[in-house]
Amino acid sequence: MITKAAIYHRSHSSYSYAYDKDTLHLRIRTAKGEVDNATLRIGDPYDWTFGGGGGNLNAEDASGWTGGTNLPMIKECETELFDYWFCEAQPRFYRARYAFLLEGKDSEKLLVSEKLITQITDDADPILSQLLNFYCFPYMNPTDVFNAPEWVKETIWYQIFPERFANGDPSISPKNVLPWGSEDPKTNSFFGGDLQGVIDHLDYLQDLGITGIYFTPITQGETNHKYDTTDYLKVDPAFGSDETVHTLIDEAHKRGMKVMLDAVFNHIGANSIQWQDVIKHGKDSQYIDWFYVEQFPLIDESKKAYHSKEQLNYRAFAFAQNMPKLNTENPEVIEYLIEVGRYWVKNFDIDAWRLDVANEVDQRFWRRFRDELKAIKPELYILGEVWHDSMNWLGGDQFDGVMNYPLADAMLGFFAHDNLSANQFKFAVNDVNANYPINVNEVAFSLLDSHDTPRIINRCNGNKEKAKLAYLFQFTHSGTPCIYYGGEIGLDGGVDPLNRKCMIWDERQHDMNMKHHIMQLIKLRKAHPALRAHAINWLVVDDEQQCFIYQKEYQGERIIIAMNNSNAPACMTLPSEWRDQEVTDIYHETAVKLTQSLTVPAFGFAVYQI
Amino acid sequence: MITKAAIYHRSHSSYSYAYDKDTLHLRIRTAKGEVDNATLRIGDPYDWTFGGGGGNLNAEDASGWTGGTNLPMIKECETELFDYWFCEAQPRFYRARYAFLLEGKDSEKLLVSEKLITQITDDADPILSQLLNFYCFPYMNPTDVFNAPEWVKETIWYQIFPERFANGDPSISPKNVLPWGSEDPKTNSFFGGDLQGVIDHLDYLQDLGITGIYFTPITQGETNHKYDTTDYLKVDPAFGSDETVHTLIDEAHKRGMKVMLDAVFNHIGANSIQWQDVIKHGKDSQYIDWFYVEQFPLIDESKKAYHSKEQLNYRAFAFAQNMPKLNTENPEVIEYLIEVGRYWVKNFDIDAWRLDVANEVDQRFWRRFRDELKAIKPELYILGEVWHDSMNWLGGDQFDGVMNYPLADAMLGFFAHDNLSANQFKFAVNDVNANYPINVNEVAFSLLDSHDTPRIINRCNGNKEKAKLAYLFQFTHSGTPCIYYGGEIGLDGGVDPLNRKCMIWDERQHDMNMKHHIMQLIKLRKAHPALRAHAINWLVVDDEQQCFIYQKEYQGERIIIAMNNSNAPACMTLPSEWRDQEVTDIYHETAVKLTQSLTVPAFGFAVYQI
Repeated sequence: MITKAAIYHRSHSSYSYAYDKDTLHLRIRTAKGEVDNATLRIGDPYDWTFGGGGGNLNAEDASGWTGGTNLPMIKECETELFDYWFCEAQPRFYRARYAFLLEGKDSEKLLVSEKLITQITDDADPILSQLLNFYCFPYMNPTDVFNAPEWVKETIWYQIFPERFANGDPSISPKNVLPWGSEDPKTNSFFGGDLQGVIDHLDYLQDLGITGIYFTPITQGETNHKYDTTDYLKVDPAFGSDETVHTLIDEAHKRGMKVMLDAVFNHIGANSIQWQDVIKHGKDSQYIDWFYVEQFPLIDESKKAYHSKEQLNYRAFAFAQNMPKLNTENPEVIEYLIEVGRYWVKNFDIDAWRLDVANEVDQRFWRRFRDELKAIKPELYILGEVWHDSMNWLGGDQFDGVMNYPLADAMLGFFAHDNLSANQFKFAVNDVNANYPINVNEVAFSLLDSHDTPRIINRCNGNKEKAKLAYLFQFTHSGTPCIYYGGEIGLDGGVDPLNRKCMIWDERQHDMNMKHHIMQLIKLRKAHPALRAHAINWLVVDDEQQCFIYQKEYQGERIIIAMNNSNAPACMTLPSEWRDQEVTDIYHETAVKLTQSLTVPAFGFAVYQI
Repeated sequence: MITKAAIYHRSHSSYSYAYDKDTLHLRIRTAKGEVDNATLRIGDPYDWTFGGGGGNLNAEDASGWTGGTNLPMIKECETELFDYWFCEAQPRFYRARYAFLLEGKDSEKLLVSEKLITQITDDADPILSQLLNFYCFPYMNPTDVFNAPEWVKETIWYQIFPERFANGDPSISPKNVLPWGSEDPKTNSFFGGDLQGVIDHLDYLQDLGITGIYFTPITQGETNHKYDTTDYLKVDPAFGSDETVHTLIDEAHKRGMKVMLDAVFNHIGANSIQWQDVIKHGKDSQYIDWFYVEQFPLIDESKKAYHSKEQLNYRAFAFAQNMPKLNTENPEVIEYLIEVGRYWVKNFDIDAWRLDVANEVDQRFWRRFRDELKAIKPELYILGEVWHDSMNWLGGDQFDGVMNYPLADAMLGFFAHDNLSANQFKFAVNDVNANYPINVNEVAFSLLDSHDTPRIINRCNGNKEKAKLAYLFQFTHSGTPCIYYGGEIGLDGGVDPLNRKCMIWDERQHDMNMKHHIMQLIKLRKAHPALRAHAINWLVVDDEQQCFIYQKEYQGERIIIAMNNSNAPACMTLPSEWRDQEVTDIYHETAVKLTQSLTVPAFGFAVYQI
């Protein structure tokens, strides 16, 4: 019996969306292993007998039922609990009514519509009697289609924490600066990293293959991380000047690199003129409505002692007294922040905004932000920091992408923490993918670590081979991958502040093996669109040996990636179409003759193209 | 065993939303009958050990687990397949992390988080190890809270199709006008109804108890229904003048009645200057980008014959050649239509816009429309015509409500068509309610019929007692109920155009019994907030006798409504708290002494207050 309670579909969601202006994507979820075939029955809402409405819906229909068209669905993926079924439709008139036909064991057949799930028999035409209950996709309006810039899918990002990347101009370093890399960073350490340091190493990044740089904040702040903005329009004097930024971005663009800055709009720094004015003038401050003050006197007026959380009498980021939350419903604040957003695009030609703590700022603000910013640069990439389920921000009206921490969690769980079996990893990856529209997944920001997490090397307890496997997965999965500065040379570091160590520039201290690995991955990803493609076809998944093989495919090119995440060699039987084939090991750039099975060394991998 | 595959929750959806700026609503769905207890575990995202984050989350926690607070969930309702569990939370800092604890048979306990469902035991503290997997409600920003005008919940609507309500000024009737009510309407009949006719009968509506009038279009069009707008800024000359509208609205307002007009923005009429210009100038028309023309010559240039659907070479509403679809992505069209929206609010002080075919217009347009219109009249009610799942338009950024056709379908299925059992009806009603946030349900536009459907009397095959039961349910359910003109006097009519008969003004032809019923229902609904309350407590549901009793409650007032939808008397055992009680029959305004059971006559009902 098909478990009715496990069936899920909702229109206008990750189950039903316009992929582009002509193409509708439809998914249905069923309990795992219960359904053998799924079929979409689809037609025009205003004339069901019109034969499906044209587009790709003109196929001769053999069902004998009235109106509409049957489109076969493919099994997109399986997770721990579910199978997901998928198909595309291109309705001639950009609108559709539809339902799903599910076939289970013992000839069980169900018709799943918006209002009812009914048993059907082969004899009767179940369609007309149920048509009013069908699902509806009322209209595919182009402006509502999720539409991220094309360039994002091709980009290889590199995240830079400016205070720790390179000191290119010691004359502007803070007074209390420590010698570069002389000690492990503390919360309030300064090492003098700056933007001239980045300019000096753009060739290094270009050699690596990087095509986009994501900077944590470069504007004036009191801390080393600058998330406590003092002035949104001023480059931090310890980082450089407007001139430095111009040079940096020009030089990056010359090298084909995009530049992404960090917009910290949820809160402002306590030293900003706005908050200082509130501290000084209290209720009479002209900025009083920029914040959410519950009561005066403000607890930070004394600035002497740590106050308890209960005493916090204004809204702040987390419980951070130095980061009062901005009231983004106040028209003055909205105008101000949007002007900030525009300023860096118009004057410095940045290519992307990463939005800090994006899910705590109101969505009305982000809609406005998108409209105003895309109006001046349609190809701008808007990336939100959201660690949880993000569907709510990815409807096409707000962000182009989010930081894909759920995918990172799956990769860490398997490769680093060994708390997922190979199958659980597959399920977790499939879960993330099935939770979002495909056009969203294609531009999700994929990361293994960041300034907010321990580094991947540390997550792997120093096992660099495991870290390499994780990078391999990241670079052969869809989305837009990012390397956290230093990852490529094996820079280590645990939780904040240790994950923000100074970049090492002495090549003798570089892990050249890791660097070669990263460079190979970047090269492969650029050369083979199949690796960037969204669909992932798991050919072999073996819990006992903690290994798997998956296939990626694009326009006839087929590549398999095999990984062994255990400390013993793993032997996997190859699927028939790959047995005894002459293939290219595109990682090592050699020819290989496959046999019946493939043996992968401990913590090893293989990338073969047929 | 609890069926994991049937468990559903997604943050920022009908399962997780801010009810108001302080209150979070959380729901979880489980397979029916499997879970005995559900508990919400909730705390502050930035400090779980902070004890839940204040608000209503300060309760002493007896679980012994670290951090957060346990809040018991109530079983909100059951449907055919599911139980829905519900609770409210008021986090001190307007943000939350949470998970669900489910208790099944044989001491089975599950912890349901965003990423995992895990079995738990009494001994271990399952919280800390799973905290990173918890769900997140990142921030309750007031501007993102769904926020419909308060007055809507209290309103009793009356829908008027102006051409058929009353002829108050024969001098402006169309030339081809037929004598009032002289024959059944055809698609192209004109009977001369106008706005003076409505003014003349405002006292009638006031006596009935109506507090809001919803007009199908009153602007110039060629058809009798005026959905083919010729001029959005001009009152149809056969309906009246600007002056008539001013008088109408002033007089309505004097009587405490709101006025809602119909915005037909998906398409325009073929006789509009815009479409005529396209017909005349083709590609060179200044209005070419107002439409979606695929090819010239346009198929309607000849206007001679009916063209096949395949030949339609411009986008239109359905396949209607006289209703070319407007390109609401064109900034000129956007400005134009929004100015139309403003015009009627600013110049005529209308209280609400009903948006025709709302789900085929792009959502970006509706967001803009809402912002612009609410800016000039915050208390404006924006009602979208959406027949299907409408969650996508009800996130607070677009509509205040939709026409609740799913609820109508449930009522028709049970009361009119007899194709639902009493329990299936209960499940269908609960399904609709559980599918939307409660604040959305509270202002949903509730209807049994409209100009787009057969009248309720006809759906009931002329059985007026069944129609009365349907009205009773409609008026004792949450939402904002509407009567389609003439329903109160028993006006009948099948599918369009027969559902648009002339209103009967000869009282001798009125069904006074039906009128009394409607007036009683309106009076009861106004007098008893419990009847308007959202929660519906089904006390008895009996499939054999097709009858049920449900209870509504508000601030201590309790009312039961009993209905028997069968042609034989039904006897129902009363729940203990109602047995042998002295109650008031508030419909008949008499005292009643209840016994152990309640007998309701064939197609009868009872409304008792304790």
